[in-house]
Amino acid sequence: MNDVAKLAGVSQPTVSRVLNSDSISVHISDETKERVMDAVKTLGYRTNVMARGLRTQRSQLIAIMIADISNGFYHLIVRAVQDVAREHNYEVLISNSDHVYENEKHFCEVVLDRGVDGVIMVPIHLISYDDLDPYLSQTDIPFVVLGQHVDHPEVDKIFVDDEKAIYEATLWLIHKGGHQNIGYVGVPDFQPAGPRRFRGYRRALEESGLPFNPAWCYSEGDFTREGGAKAIKRLHETGTMPEALIVLNDLMAIGAILALQELGYNVPEDVAVIGFDDIPEATIVRPKLTTIAQNPREIGTNLANALFQRIEHPRTTRRNIESSYKLIERDSTRRKT
Amino acid sequence: MNDVAKLAGVSQPTVSRVLNSDSISVHISDETKERVMDAVKTLGYRTNVMARGLRTQRSQLIAIMIADISNGFYHLIVRAVQDVAREHNYEVLISNSDHVYENEKHFCEVVLDRGVDGVIMVPIHLISYDDLDPYLSQTDIPFVVLGQHVDHPEVDKIFVDDEKAIYEATLWLIHKGGHQNIGYVGVPDFQPAGPRRFRGYRRALEESGLPFNPAWCYSEGDFTREGGAKAIKRLHETGTMPEALIVLNDLMAIGAILALQELGYNVPEDVAVIGFDDIPEATIVRPKLTTIAQNPREIGTNLANALFQRIEHPRTTRRNIESSYKLIERDSTRRKT
Repeated sequence: MNDVAKLAGVSQPTVSRVLNSDSISVHISDETKERVMDAVKTLGYRTNVMARGLRTQRSQLIAIMIADISNGFYHLIVRAVQDVAREHNYEVLISNSDHVYENEKHFCEVVLDRGVDGVIMVPIHLISYDDLDPYLSQTDIPFVVLGQHVDHPEVDKIFVDDEKAIYEATLWLIHKGGHQNIGYVGVPDFQPAGPRRFRGYRRALEESGLPFNPAWCYSEGDFTREGGAKAIKRLHETGTMPEALIVLNDLMAIGAILALQELGYNVPEDVAVIGFDDIPEATIVRPKLTTIAQNPREIGTNLANALFQRIEHPRTTRRNIESSYKLIERDSTRRKT
Repeated sequence: MNDVAKLAGVSQPTVSRVLNSDSISVHISDETKERVMDAVKTLGYRTNVMARGLRTQRSQLIAIMIADISNGFYHLIVRAVQDVAREHNYEVLISNSDHVYENEKHFCEVVLDRGVDGVIMVPIHLISYDDLDPYLSQTDIPFVVLGQHVDHPEVDKIFVDDEKAIYEATLWLIHKGGHQNIGYVGVPDFQPAGPRRFRGYRRALEESGLPFNPAWCYSEGDFTREGGAKAIKRLHETGTMPEALIVLNDLMAIGAILALQELGYNVPEDVAVIGFDDIPEATIVRPKLTTIAQNPREIGTNLANALFQRIEHPRTTRRNIESSYKLIERDSTRRKT
């Protein structure tokens, strides 16, 4: 800044005033401004935002933490967040937690330390008040999360009622698909989506007076194709393959379909399969995957809009916004004729 | 910091010395240190790294810019970079350029401003000396890039010889597959991978004495499934479908296969297809995709290792490191019998 002042022939405070034009209270002539800006250009001077951040408290940067960079569901969320952010002239930095608790906590520490202006998270484990409060109580920056299970009064929440979605999809398999032996491929209970979605499945069976058979259920999935393949291997080995499967997400559903086919089962004739998410791969696999489509673009837009509303109006009341879903019928299921 | 000093009953400089233990020159007793750390714990005091960054010049943060978050090739690169970074106790922030020049430039501005300790980029457009120098000349932080076409002496480069890879794959289609009418699906010339890979295809045809037919080539792809589908539509409409296709990347190759099947062509009997990358979807599509596998884990590890070597030893000579590739034969091509 000193060099700029010298070259422009003005004082250092004048350079500072011109560069931080938001806070100008002293009048500075256009000619002086021009001289300073010319000197800045000549010297390639770059305002040090780390120093500037200490004064203005604005970084023009938001951060989003997603759970799995290889899951297409998150790509559309990120794209939608980027689109909103660019309208506000903000850059988005992404962090990938890989569903790991330690990574989620490390992310929070980093974003608090780096002074970003807002945070969007899809937390898998960091969801209790006790876990979140150490971060939230230390900062004024807004946090917006995806997930109704997140328990802290200071966050805005966007959520999808996935229990209801799975409940409805199971009823659809029963009534439209004509299935009675319906199995389930899920994830362990410590993953929040696990118990919720499983409840939707159980409730639909109960209300329809259908038997629940633990041998048709696999709850050790990990959201990946490999997890879906392992589930099928287990069901096949124990000789208890149901005639239809509700699978907790699309990547596992696709892994399940490919594994079924390798073992000689026909989909949907021998086993019908329903997934959850509607990721791009759902229309690559054959048969194409019937799935509960979330609306990741709507989710991402809601997340980003909620965040920027809080960035611009910090006192906005915290909100819970429900996002839509719908069953998309493709070829991995068949209707009773 | 004032509150911590009060609670611990010590002076503010003492608190500062304990917290910045790297630079302790004055002796401080263990008992005092303990008292300060207890006070820090009680008050939930968080060192402001924006302020600390001004002193230590270390953020424990690196940034990586990828070209397309929905392309699986980049996911494995990011995972490998994260693995190396976590060994060094660094966090990785990701930026998604969507192949857009403005986004690439904006990324550079943001990372220079935010004081990250190192940058990894997969630049698509920001590759000339004139474009890169305004950023690189202003900073001491190391830049490591993927791509041999990047023209700046201050960057380390990891690259794959994709011209040679396509050349060899084309020869393989000719000699092992027995094909003579081989077409090409690429991207426009302003995308650096475009001319390079196209040259590999042309050279193999020439050396084999085979005809080059512009009507079999499509160069308006955009790396996406939709781009591959559009190429097939064009070739079909003009009535010039070749018997084999080299496709510049896997996502377009998969779009091409699905579009061919919808139009009634059999793959590989009517049209053989080879892709490039070996993304996870290559084994979801049926027939499974024959492709030139890059080794994204090796690429990511090389990128990160080169970066941390420069972070820790800034005077390390800049390097060009070639990464491997290999043809993986699956079902979308067939061998001459």
